[in-house]
Amino acid sequence: MSERRKTKPVFVGDVQVGGDAPIVVQSMTATDTADVESTLNQIAELADLGCEIVRVAVPDKEAAAAMPEIVKRTAVPLMADIHFDYRWAMAALKANVHGLRLNPGNIRDPDKVRMIVKEAKARETPIRIGVNAGSLPPLKALADDEMPPPMHERMVDAALWELNILEEMGFDSLKISLKAFDVPTMVQAYRDLSARLDEAGTPYPFHLGITEAGLPRAGSVRSAIGIGILLSEGIGDTIRVSLAADPKEEPPVCWDILASLNLRQRGPTIVACPTCGRIEIELIPLANKVEAHFQKLGKPITVAVMGCVVNGPGEAKMADLGIAGGKGRGVIFRKGEIVKTVNEDEFLSAIIEEGDKVIAEMENGNSDIADADFPPGDAPDPVIPIQEVPSSTSER
Amino acid sequence: MSERRKTKPVFVGDVQVGGDAPIVVQSMTATDTADVESTLNQIAELADLGCEIVRVAVPDKEAAAAMPEIVKRTAVPLMADIHFDYRWAMAALKANVHGLRLNPGNIRDPDKVRMIVKEAKARETPIRIGVNAGSLPPLKALADDEMPPPMHERMVDAALWELNILEEMGFDSLKISLKAFDVPTMVQAYRDLSARLDEAGTPYPFHLGITEAGLPRAGSVRSAIGIGILLSEGIGDTIRVSLAADPKEEPPVCWDILASLNLRQRGPTIVACPTCGRIEIELIPLANKVEAHFQKLGKPITVAVMGCVVNGPGEAKMADLGIAGGKGRGVIFRKGEIVKTVNEDEFLSAIIEEGDKVIAEMENGNSDIADADFPPGDAPDPVIPIQEVPSSTSER
Repeated sequence: MSERRKTKPVFVGDVQVGGDAPIVVQSMTATDTADVESTLNQIAELADLGCEIVRVAVPDKEAAAAMPEIVKRTAVPLMADIHFDYRWAMAALKANVHGLRLNPGNIRDPDKVRMIVKEAKARETPIRIGVNAGSLPPLKALADDEMPPPMHERMVDAALWELNILEEMGFDSLKISLKAFDVPTMVQAYRDLSARLDEAGTPYPFHLGITEAGLPRAGSVRSAIGIGILLSEGIGDTIRVSLAADPKEEPPVCWDILASLNLRQRGPTIVACPTCGRIEIELIPLANKVEAHFQKLGKPITVAVMGCVVNGPGEAKMADLGIAGGKGRGVIFRKGEIVKTVNEDEFLSAIIEEGDKVIAEMENGNSDIADADFPPGDAPDPVIPIQEVPSSTSER
Repeated sequence: MSERRKTKPVFVGDVQVGGDAPIVVQSMTATDTADVESTLNQIAELADLGCEIVRVAVPDKEAAAAMPEIVKRTAVPLMADIHFDYRWAMAALKANVHGLRLNPGNIRDPDKVRMIVKEAKARETPIRIGVNAGSLPPLKALADDEMPPPMHERMVDAALWELNILEEMGFDSLKISLKAFDVPTMVQAYRDLSARLDEAGTPYPFHLGITEAGLPRAGSVRSAIGIGILLSEGIGDTIRVSLAADPKEEPPVCWDILASLNLRQRGPTIVACPTCGRIEIELIPLANKVEAHFQKLGKPITVAVMGCVVNGPGEAKMADLGIAGGKGRGVIFRKGEIVKTVNEDEFLSAIIEEGDKVIAEMENGNSDIADADFPPGDAPDPVIPIQEVPSSTSER
């Protein structure tokens, strides 16, 4: 894990993006924005799932007309997504929206861009420049023997061009995204732009995402790799996972990404073995029940649910709470110590009971550590108790 | 994407791992190995999903007794997973298993290890050393003021120690894994060991995995990040995703990881927009049907299913086949060219029809390119046709 890039923070409403703020989780509504109640319901549902900023498309007059009411009643700060028409940007700003996603090049008329920038500046409303491999500006004419530049270069060039329009108008409350479906293209674009901006002394924060990542399974994997590689290099200040699915599927994947890199944790992290021919307990239903229980409590606890003697005790010791099951009995570990041995029918109740104790400790003893996000930088290196090689099970 | 690490290949049956072989996909059965029919059924199901090597646990006499029949009738090469007891290793070898996963330190008695190595060598059967953060050898005693080494160092030390036992017996048909649940720990362990081995001139291939990654969604994300970071650095020769779920859920995630990095593709890759307030067609059901259709055909085709004018045409042009829908009509693209415009009720049939043409072209014109795995090294940089900024839609 590299140290996090030092970026110039912007504020989307009261949510800081960049600087020393935690990586912010975002999503986008899929309702018709003109339908105020449906849109507000979806925003609230996304917020309940840990979505800290929500984007809404404002593609027409009806959507623009709905924005004042939506902004007034929203659960979290909103970004208005604007394409082509400056009027919807102006309407969103006047509705007190918390940020705009807008590419000035796509508004085209410099006078109209100037109007938007003047209004955004007066209101201290940030703008995200959102470059997308699927909608780049036209290439300049190429000579006969000239190859077009690679996609990631075209994306960086587009971002710098868009940026330049805003900077020349004295606007710098900015964040930038460089989305592509192709992971290597997306990763290289963000790497190159971060180097260019840091060198220029304008380290704007980055919104990371894979665009049109696809259906939930493949789209989550693709997003996790692209976003994960960059976050592990210290690049990225806010993330969005774009799935062809109910938007409610997106925030949990964002949180899974952040938890996987020890950047932030929301709700439980479940360590659970894949089961194999060594399995001796009904593990998968138990793991699901354990996750559901601690998800409901919303506490950042790590629970290991392990089904055999090979890795079970080791993993169970490393987690906040663990069970290593075998032959109808299970050993419960709390913070690395064995606390009891129980029968299989008591596994869940014992985990819940010991979980309450772990959570109580978190909240009394050192709540500021337990509930806080992990600090940026190197992953914590848990001090592991000395482990014994498990004794032979050849008698089985 | 870094160039792939040059490793010393081993053969698990007829499947090459390492060297210039494609990254191999693996999984593990969760049946009782002693139940021959269930185990063979699960092996066949995994093979149908693109699993190229399957591991089976051999934890006891009954499992060992089932191995001859399982090996005789298996659909793909098998690795026997052995812990603690040399007898099951000997039995698996004598059953003609294609490889062993075995840590000599965990067998302990050097004479027994020697017996296994002699037999494996005579049969040219490779061994995977599988180090796992949850079952490391005990730490040596520490002085009062001495801190235990970080986990990734302990894992590398354990691998080198296990390796040394086998190398001293003249055995080098090896691959190595260094699994942990913690992504930064796992990534650092593989990076460090690859540097150590390459320097020593013994570049054994690596089996990558996150251990006990958890339930499907979070486990897939965690595995994708850990495995994805390493593959993007050129590290890794075979991969396994460990989920607390039906093992059939694992190979598709492996393939999603490989496709995301343009390393290999199996079946379709679906580019699909997340839908937003701009959506104008019923996109998600269509994307699911398109995926199901091309999944059934099993062809490596990239299909974009896009719902609006902003990124739709751009993404649809870049894919092998694409549809950019809007207002009840959709434009179909084939290999970057518009081929027709259809009504919403014809979307699926038009995609299927044009898909047949793309697949026919793949199989006639240049089947060796279309069906082959992507070459290792840099991601291909598709030459994108010059794109126009879409015309204003402000009249909507």
